[in-house]
Amino acid sequence: MVAHTRQDVANVPIRQRLIAAAVLAAALAVPAFADEAGPKVADFKLSNGLELVVIPDHRAPVVTHMIWYKVGSADEVAGHSGLAHFLEHLMFKGTAKHPTGAFSQVVAHMGGQENAFTTDDYTGYFQRVPSADLKTVMAFEADRMTGLQLTDAVVLPEREVILEEQNQRIGNNPRAKLSEQIEAALYLNSPYGRPVIGWRHEMEQLTRDDAIGFYRRFYGPNNAVVVIAGDVTPDEALAYAKDTYGKVAPRASIPPRQRPQEPKPIAARRLTMADPRVELPVLQRDYLVPSFHTAKPGQSEALQVLAHILGTGSNSRLYQALVMKEKLAVAAGAWYEASALDDSKFGVYGSPRDGVSLPQLESATDAVIEDVIAHGITTDELERAKTRLIADAVYAHDNQASMARWYGSALTTGATVADVEKWPDRIRKVTAAEVQDAARAWLEKTRSVTGYLIKDTHKAERRS
Amino acid sequence: MVAHTRQDVANVPIRQRLIAAAVLAAALAVPAFADEAGPKVADFKLSNGLELVVIPDHRAPVVTHMIWYKVGSADEVAGHSGLAHFLEHLMFKGTAKHPTGAFSQVVAHMGGQENAFTTDDYTGYFQRVPSADLKTVMAFEADRMTGLQLTDAVVLPEREVILEEQNQRIGNNPRAKLSEQIEAALYLNSPYGRPVIGWRHEMEQLTRDDAIGFYRRFYGPNNAVVVIAGDVTPDEALAYAKDTYGKVAPRASIPPRQRPQEPKPIAARRLTMADPRVELPVLQRDYLVPSFHTAKPGQSEALQVLAHILGTGSNSRLYQALVMKEKLAVAAGAWYEASALDDSKFGVYGSPRDGVSLPQLESATDAVIEDVIAHGITTDELERAKTRLIADAVYAHDNQASMARWYGSALTTGATVADVEKWPDRIRKVTAAEVQDAARAWLEKTRSVTGYLIKDTHKAERRS
Repeated sequence: MVAHTRQDVANVPIRQRLIAAAVLAAALAVPAFADEAGPKVADFKLSNGLELVVIPDHRAPVVTHMIWYKVGSADEVAGHSGLAHFLEHLMFKGTAKHPTGAFSQVVAHMGGQENAFTTDDYTGYFQRVPSADLKTVMAFEADRMTGLQLTDAVVLPEREVILEEQNQRIGNNPRAKLSEQIEAALYLNSPYGRPVIGWRHEMEQLTRDDAIGFYRRFYGPNNAVVVIAGDVTPDEALAYAKDTYGKVAPRASIPPRQRPQEPKPIAARRLTMADPRVELPVLQRDYLVPSFHTAKPGQSEALQVLAHILGTGSNSRLYQALVMKEKLAVAAGAWYEASALDDSKFGVYGSPRDGVSLPQLESATDAVIEDVIAHGITTDELERAKTRLIADAVYAHDNQASMARWYGSALTTGATVADVEKWPDRIRKVTAAEVQDAARAWLEKTRSVTGYLIKDTHKAERRS
Repeated sequence: MVAHTRQDVANVPIRQRLIAAAVLAAALAVPAFADEAGPKVADFKLSNGLELVVIPDHRAPVVTHMIWYKVGSADEVAGHSGLAHFLEHLMFKGTAKHPTGAFSQVVAHMGGQENAFTTDDYTGYFQRVPSADLKTVMAFEADRMTGLQLTDAVVLPEREVILEEQNQRIGNNPRAKLSEQIEAALYLNSPYGRPVIGWRHEMEQLTRDDAIGFYRRFYGPNNAVVVIAGDVTPDEALAYAKDTYGKVAPRASIPPRQRPQEPKPIAARRLTMADPRVELPVLQRDYLVPSFHTAKPGQSEALQVLAHILGTGSNSRLYQALVMKEKLAVAAGAWYEASALDDSKFGVYGSPRDGVSLPQLESATDAVIEDVIAHGITTDELERAKTRLIADAVYAHDNQASMARWYGSALTTGATVADVEKWPDRIRKVTAAEVQDAARAWLEKTRSVTGYLIKDTHKAERRS
């Protein structure tokens, strides 16, 4: 039962989760509460440093409870890649008070759901349970915040689990491998170049001591944000938090989050990955661009509007030009990750129709981008993009987990509750000139890696 | 005077020094003493862990004294790039016993020469002085092994010096910048991807505390190799060493040299760098290959023979094909760095004649490589390469500094004195089939980054 519950968690592909988050971040970024009549969000800080965000939603007697730690794969020590994600798995292995699997079992008995996720910047755990069970879940989560106990007997088999996960999600997935290679080539100095799941040869060496050392360094109330969305009042949630998380002593020395930064990019890079399992070739280009946290005011919002106009949905420039008019592609689009502590990525991608080469598709993609740089966007496009971005955020109030995710991802990547609430206003202020400027400034080839995924016809089985 | 002496040191371009070392390593690698009638090399270990290698050479009353620390830029903590080289500069800033510049002044008064160098794997200091002054030099060097004193008053101006050095050697040198970008793209996980001189934005933040911390961590007798070549007997040198270096207490905790290793390379990468100052375009391709230390027996030697046949000198395959016969290039060659603690690089390069494009040159280069892979090399080529490699090593006995460099670079990158002495035997054993196998196994595009350096005709002045 426990194993089954855990299996469910493990079966949500990390890449899929990350991509889903990226798509959400690109399309929605941050909801539009302040003046879009969303709920009043409460924000507290406990004396031990824990931040608590409460998003009331009384439509049904359920709550979504998430704890976000401000630590991800970019905080790992080089040579120990995959450790943040490995620890995410090991967090289910029990404490002095609750043996392995007890927490998951309790959530299952409540009829609840649970999950966990790791990215470059944060690690999160969440449960969706009846609101009457909220405090129980918080007590369990507070217990494993500093009470985790690990032995080789549980650590070593779990290492096999993450290795198999790496195999399924990356090793056997040429598209995911392409992204991994592009990111490694994009970031010359930043730890964002490392895969979140880890390099396999380093994952194989991860130990119990690595995991416990990482846990003791980064897990504590003063490095965590609890986000609760659902059928609870801020005062109730605060009282529960004080009774549970409030009892946990702060971790003495949480290190500052200063990661190596990128040098100025000066050389356009390209890579080709051939794999015999490829049926549909892929063109993917990632550009190094500012995140909301590293951007000057307005730059990140202009990139969000640009990503929408260029490549979100079937009315986008890329889709219209490449799929509809020129009939060169079966898919085409663009995305931007705004939520990141350090410099982030803007991507364009496409897959050619039969008989169209990747260079042909790339030239046509370049032409679309160059047109935006040279001639800008129309007022109509700008207004449609803004309306859609803000509307999507409003619609997203409908989902507790999405709401909690926006706040959690913002607060663990350098933004504040006010930044989240003011997002619709900032989107409204974006001008057509700013979008054109963003395209000109950031969609420069020297800032990018262009990747081709092609079918390998030479080797029946690729060594990897 | 002091400033002048130091200036001389600083004026030897680090890239040039590194490239010179690479060329030596590729062409000569390790001398051929055991059976090539070279001098008998003595190897000692002091009780504090210091290794002493003495290469007697009594032709003239001079000695070359070098101290090699087993620490280089690959041992830096990420985010503090350039620290190993910065410390190299700061080592001239004086101790309690000897104020700033005193050591350099003494060497100058002896009529001696001095220099210092930093690579990914080691940091070295050397003096060439009258043999009568050897012990004095050793006493100075032993004093600054643990006695360095640094204040902001000397550290901060020296930081300006290394920044200016970066500007001269890399910033204003498109060819060096191309190599920097290729290395950053070649190494996805290993710290070899960082420039030895550092990323400029990180160099700007280096502090006195960084330098002293690095010094205390890595500089000590148990992390050093002293190599003396010249007019001294092993017994004399040992006695001097005991009286000087022997008095220095070992450093408590020299960390093991375990750097992050590369994942298996799976995607061929390319990059283009445009710069308005480029007059002659350049094609350069680096492949990830084993070093002597990481290779299986014989693999590194086969790569040395391959580099020689493919691209050393005007009889090489690349030069003959591209420069002489096809008249596509004005320069063409290949090199291999055998001395490295972790996986190393094999490079091919060329510059096209007027009217020839880089893709044309690249196709022709590929054809030369593919011919070796498909048809191997001739017995005649093999024998000529071996003879030349071994002869070069014998001729190199003529130069004290070269001899000392071979031993020093070998002993700080995982090899032993015996490995150095047996090198000619190992080269003799290389077969034509092994050279072909090496080309097939390692000169695979998925292991490589191909770089183009082209003239930027769009921008009068490139931002960098």
